[in-house]
Amino acid sequence: MATVRLLSDAELSPAAAEVFADIRATRKTPFVNNFWRALAHDPVLLKRTWEGARDVMAPGHLDAKTKELIYVAVSIAHGCEYCVHSHTAAARAKGMTEAELMELVAVVGMAAETNRIATALQVPVDAAFQVVTR
Amino acid sequence: MATVRLLSDAELSPAAAEVFADIRATRKTPFVNNFWRALAHDPVLLKRTWEGARDVMAPGHLDAKTKELIYVAVSIAHGCEYCVHSHTAAARAKGMTEAELMELVAVVGMAAETNRIATALQVPVDAAFQVVTR
Amino acid sequence: MATVRLLSDAELSPAAAEVFADIRATRKTPFVNNFWRALAHDPVLLKRTWEGARDVMAPGHLDAKTKELIYVAVSIAHGCEYCVHSHTAAARAKGMTEAELMELVAVVGMAAETNRIATALQVPVDAAFQVVTR
Amino acid sequence: MATVRLLSDAELSPAAAEVFADIRATRKTPFVNNFWRALAHDPVLLKRTWEGARDVMAPGHLDAKTKELIYVAVSIAHGCEYCVHSHTAAARAKGMTEAELMELVAVVGMAAETNRIATALQVPVDAAFQVVTR
Amino acid sequence: MATVRLLSDAELSPAAAEVFADIRATRKTPFVNNFWRALAHDPVLLKRTWEGARDVMAPGHLDAKTKELIYVAVSIAHGCEYCVHSHTAAARAKGMTEAELMELVAVVGMAAETNRIATALQVPVDAAFQVVTR
Amino acid sequence: MATVRLLSDAELSPAAAEVFADIRATRKTPFVNNFWRALAHDPVLLKRTWEGARDVMAPGHLDAKTKELIYVAVSIAHGCEYCVHSHTAAARAKGMTEAELMELVAVVGMAAETNRIATALQVPVDAAFQVVTR
Repeated sequence: MATVRLLSDAELSPAAAEVFADIRATRKTPFVNNFWRALAHDPVLLKRTWEGARDVMAPGHLDAKTKELIYVAVSIAHGCEYCVHSHTAAARAKGMTEAELMELVAVVGMAAETNRIATALQVPVDAAFQVVTR
Repeated sequence: MATVRLLSDAELSPAAAEVFADIRATRKTPFVNNFWRALAHDPVLLKRTWEGARDVMAPGHLDAKTKELIYVAVSIAHGCEYCVHSHTAAARAKGMTEAELMELVAVVGMAAETNRIATALQVPVDAAFQVVTR
Repeated sequence: MATVRLLSDAELSPAAAEVFADIRATRKTPFVNNFWRALAHDPVLLKRTWEGARDVMAPGHLDAKTKELIYVAVSIAHGCEYCVHSHTAAARAKGMTEAELMELVAVVGMAAETNRIATALQVPVDAAFQVVTR
Repeated sequence: MATVRLLSDAELSPAAAEVFADIRATRKTPFVNNFWRALAHDPVLLKRTWEGARDVMAPGHLDAKTKELIYVAVSIAHGCEYCVHSHTAAARAKGMTEAELMELVAVVGMAAETNRIATALQVPVDAAFQVVTR
Repeated sequence: MATVRLLSDAELSPAAAEVFADIRATRKTPFVNNFWRALAHDPVLLKRTWEGARDVMAPGHLDAKTKELIYVAVSIAHGCEYCVHSHTAAARAKGMTEAELMELVAVVGMAAETNRIATALQVPVDAAFQVVTR
Repeated sequence: MATVRLLSDAELSPAAAEVFADIRATRKTPFVNNFWRALAHDPVLLKRTWEGARDVMAPGHLDAKTKELIYVAVSIAHGCEYCVHSHTAAARAKGMTEAELMELVAVVGMAAETNRIATALQVPVDAAFQVVTR
């Protein structure tokens, strides 16, 4: 259950409806997932969040699939159930195979393990890692 | 400062020295970073952690650079200073450009924002995301 | 499902019953939520936790609603489902409007995004921020 | 040390310089803190992040000081050192007193404690908390 | 619902079946919990994870029950619902009493509170804590 | 650097001085670490936090060393640098050996790895783990 009602299309304000139209046009599907239906209570927040996500996740120096893998990894590290489900689905839609998913999981698990070990032992950063490129 | 001393090569047990030799051979460099020098107090933990990291990060279904990007993302989400530095360096060594780093940062930031919003509103997982592939 | 049974009023030890009486008197309602029913297995922990929460959340230099907004924000950042629900309800009971909730959500999301970016780039603290007041 | 160089004013691209000008105009001070100097490598990310932060943190249904208190709380929960310093300073600049800071700290600590206890015992959400307002 | 199907015994690859046999032999029970059934899609990850967990959790300098208490504490701090349930059950199976569980919960809650306070105030590490033993 | 000044003994209010006296008497040492010197700005918060920590960490159903191991584990998972240092020192003072520390680290790392894997795959809790004892 959500802490706010999920708005149906019929309940959208004109400003929110405009954002939903862009979500559908960008994704080429009539389906709009619950995240946006919860955000629709605040059309300004809805618009800023959607446009940010749309622009950041568009192919750039990194391709769209790689970006989704990163998104999934962060969602796992944050323990966000909704995000793990929605972005695992998004990554599959962008071409992630089941074998790639299991490798992603292995990398995330390994990173979690060594992250905690480095923190436990308070390992100081090597001078070699401190050289900053332009 | 670390919570344990960082061991120099001269202080390694034979079992730890063997792992260091494999680190150097695998990475084709004499440099061994502080993380392993802290772990060297426990050769069994050193060996298991190194072999796990070595195998998981080797190119597989995902290439080595993509794996490092995922590793960096998790390290950021966990707030592990050592890991952010060491794996950002590793990602650069595997070909990540400065423009790609900034895109990674943008994706991690966007994921953090939407993760927290989804948690705040306790958005329920859409039925459409629950279809599990084989 | 909980990892311990939730105790009904009839099952409370005298020490736990005394705490429940104070919860009811302080909140002016017979309703006692599940959190306290789980803690009731350990009357000492129940008493310390309740009295701490009661005193910390009472109006002081900050008013009660502001304190609840902070509580909700932390609960979101920790990914605690129970806490998000119970403290969003508590904040509403203390006067938080739906528009304020959406603004809270926007702030939490923005903070999450810039927190992760600052960590990603390991931005050093500005000297200007290091001046400590008395 | 940062993982990217902090750009001086002289090194800014025209697009980044424009954002810096808006930061200075909005805040009515020539000081631009390190966070933005790190982000300046990517003017698009700089612009989106700054405009998002500027708009979200402006007074709305919640006043500017309350928003900063929420921002500090999230930064503490995320363990972001830079963010704790910069937003504690920002909250003071917006009128937070030392007594209010200590109360904020008490609330964050209390929320952290009860969050972990609720998670430990996997307390189920009370039906009473599930009523969703319009 | 999982993001991958949970494999039944009949669906296991020979390599995964071998790991399941070791799980059953080590634990002296035919029951194999869902975690391993999800991992079974990737026998290499399954084998490495199981063997790591089996070896790390075996009695050593710390006894098996103490190790489980630590495991539960980390799972709570990470907000991992599955892990809290499975390792609370494992700790009980290794002799943890209900009174010990409530004390564990109290310690985790107290640690969470003081952790956040220390982070909030950015308390510098005392020189006295920096002496490193051999 | 802290976000508040660390108070010397000469600067303490009478109420804070009383708490410091109890810290010294309980620990049988004149040394009072920085955490309490930061909290001393708010004698009420200082007193509640100290008394909570003192009582929770006293030997009970779990011995004092085991409680410290749990405390360290949570501090690692939260990424709290101050807490990792201070409680690793405290655990050593209560008898934790270096070999036990390395085992603790191994358990925390393993828990982190499997926690993230369970979250990644959204493994549903087994019915067998849902049986709740009285």
